[in-house]
Amino acid sequence: MLKIALDAMGGDFAPEVNILGAIEAVSDSEIEVILVGDEKKINEFLKEKKDFKGKVSVLNAEDQILMDENVSTAIRRKNTSMRKAIELVKEGKANAVLSAGNSGAMMALSFLLLGKLPNVDRPAIATVMPCLKGHFILLDAGANVDCKAEHLVQFAYMGDAYHKALFNSSNPRVALLSIGEEGTKGNEATKEAFRILKDSNLNFIGNIEGKDIFFGSADVVVCDGFVGNIVLKVGEGLAEALMKMLKREIADVITGRLGYIMIKPAIKSFRKKVDYSEYGGALLLGINGTSIICHGRSSAKAIKNAIKVAAEMAKKEIYRRISESLQNTEEMNESQNSINGLLCS
Amino acid sequence: MLKIALDAMGGDFAPEVNILGAIEAVSDSEIEVILVGDEKKINEFLKEKKDFKGKVSVLNAEDQILMDENVSTAIRRKNTSMRKAIELVKEGKANAVLSAGNSGAMMALSFLLLGKLPNVDRPAIATVMPCLKGHFILLDAGANVDCKAEHLVQFAYMGDAYHKALFNSSNPRVALLSIGEEGTKGNEATKEAFRILKDSNLNFIGNIEGKDIFFGSADVVVCDGFVGNIVLKVGEGLAEALMKMLKREIADVITGRLGYIMIKPAIKSFRKKVDYSEYGGALLLGINGTSIICHGRSSAKAIKNAIKVAAEMAKKEIYRRISESLQNTEEMNESQNSINGLLCS
Repeated sequence: MLKIALDAMGGDFAPEVNILGAIEAVSDSEIEVILVGDEKKINEFLKEKKDFKGKVSVLNAEDQILMDENVSTAIRRKNTSMRKAIELVKEGKANAVLSAGNSGAMMALSFLLLGKLPNVDRPAIATVMPCLKGHFILLDAGANVDCKAEHLVQFAYMGDAYHKALFNSSNPRVALLSIGEEGTKGNEATKEAFRILKDSNLNFIGNIEGKDIFFGSADVVVCDGFVGNIVLKVGEGLAEALMKMLKREIADVITGRLGYIMIKPAIKSFRKKVDYSEYGGALLLGINGTSIICHGRSSAKAIKNAIKVAAEMAKKEIYRRISESLQNTEEMNESQNSINGLLCS
Repeated sequence: MLKIALDAMGGDFAPEVNILGAIEAVSDSEIEVILVGDEKKINEFLKEKKDFKGKVSVLNAEDQILMDENVSTAIRRKNTSMRKAIELVKEGKANAVLSAGNSGAMMALSFLLLGKLPNVDRPAIATVMPCLKGHFILLDAGANVDCKAEHLVQFAYMGDAYHKALFNSSNPRVALLSIGEEGTKGNEATKEAFRILKDSNLNFIGNIEGKDIFFGSADVVVCDGFVGNIVLKVGEGLAEALMKMLKREIADVITGRLGYIMIKPAIKSFRKKVDYSEYGGALLLGINGTSIICHGRSSAKAIKNAIKVAAEMAKKEIYRRISESLQNTEEMNESQNSINGLLCS
């Protein structure tokens, strides 16, 4: 039985959707959820529900972090639901933690309380995105804004390990997001990272351009957090804007309304495929534990899916795999350095 | 009568689409086009066409720059069609130049031969992009990969002047592309640029997030060339991928095919609105002349539209406006510095 700590007070529709998501997640799985937050509010909501078979419990937290609160002050408060949820993992009382609340605070607190893995300079946010051929992993999606080449290289290793764990893949294609396919195209950080990655033991397929990521040309797309966050949000916004523009055009055509009714099941199925809530939040890679950041607008379904992904990643001990993967890199680099040292001496 | 120099040999479908685009552009306007390239090939194509009323002429160039050629060697050759076309502007024999060829070479040669404007450190590529409420200008779309705050500030001024010239607007809303609306969110360069821009005389509306650009929340969106190029190409790729995914879903639904026929005029009109070829290429801002870089896959229609935009920008002397706008900034900064000097002394 895996125990998942959920910050019940985080997110735009908290605590309702979090509680509903938790109940849905435990109903057909070997998962227990600990809801952390305002005990009174949560219990009031829970008492109307009878179908969670004792697999949902509550841990009281008087305080909570608001969505737009300043991170540096918010993380100092001791009794917030987010902090208490993460502490459950630290104390070994839960296998993973998730929150749809203030993402900056979630990142900072996870880092602070759980610590980072050896050989990791900076933890990264990894998101699963839909594309023509299934999905790809994009990282960093917003944890680090000014990155050096060595950070991008670490992201590549972490993304590789995550893809293998999440999709049971054996040799995911790893690419650097840049502005041209040749290794000479890009900014200083990507050009240097390209040189390091092409000699790595990853299945590095080189640079990928923005136009190709949604066609499934790579399984792991690596970039700094500034670029990654913009790509993530451009994707979200553009998909929504395009559907609105298309609907407006359809309304302007005489046969459009009838046609729209006929293609509506297709649009519904399409929306489901590009809907972020199907993919269960973003995993924080590089920290010593399993921590998932959910979209602020998460629905109950999104929370349910995120809980399941959290349980799976905790079960597969993704953080241990990443640690091992980076350990190998470190050893490789060291032996390479010794060889270089011998050659130069 | 405005004279436009066109690199007839540039682009994936050269010279045919370039010649056709030129003929279409001159047919209903006060524009003359000088086709620069392989005289024999061009004339062979031209002789079958009779409807250009002597407004299309040819200048021979024996050599041409290939699409994927190394820029630094390509720009040294003296007889390329691209170089000769730009020289026409330098010599005052044409009012503007355009090419759908190697964009790196077009940028470097325009910069080299025409020179940059005073007060500009780096020229930028400005593209017009469709959104829910019309269009917005994105810059830099790929000229500068590693930017400092002062470069972003110059882009903001250049984009403002371009928007005013292109859309006859009086006070375009200028925004910085970043990862949060607050000025404290972003990377080092955007945070510093935010501080400078909020005290500028531009209509600076602050940061804009990736999800909002396609909803028309800003008229001018400023970012470095690495980010801008990725956003441009993510937009292009995602729109294409989404339409493919939607079509696949429609084909899977029983009533889908009939529905699709009924909404087809809407899809056509939609495609036209999001089609890059409607917006006539990207203008190189900050150089001493009018130079337009067209998409390598430009159709005849795209070339025609680009020629018309080139003529309009030449007529409005956009580069002089930018120069004046940046001159004002310089003077403002100087007087601000004098005031600061007085206060500190």
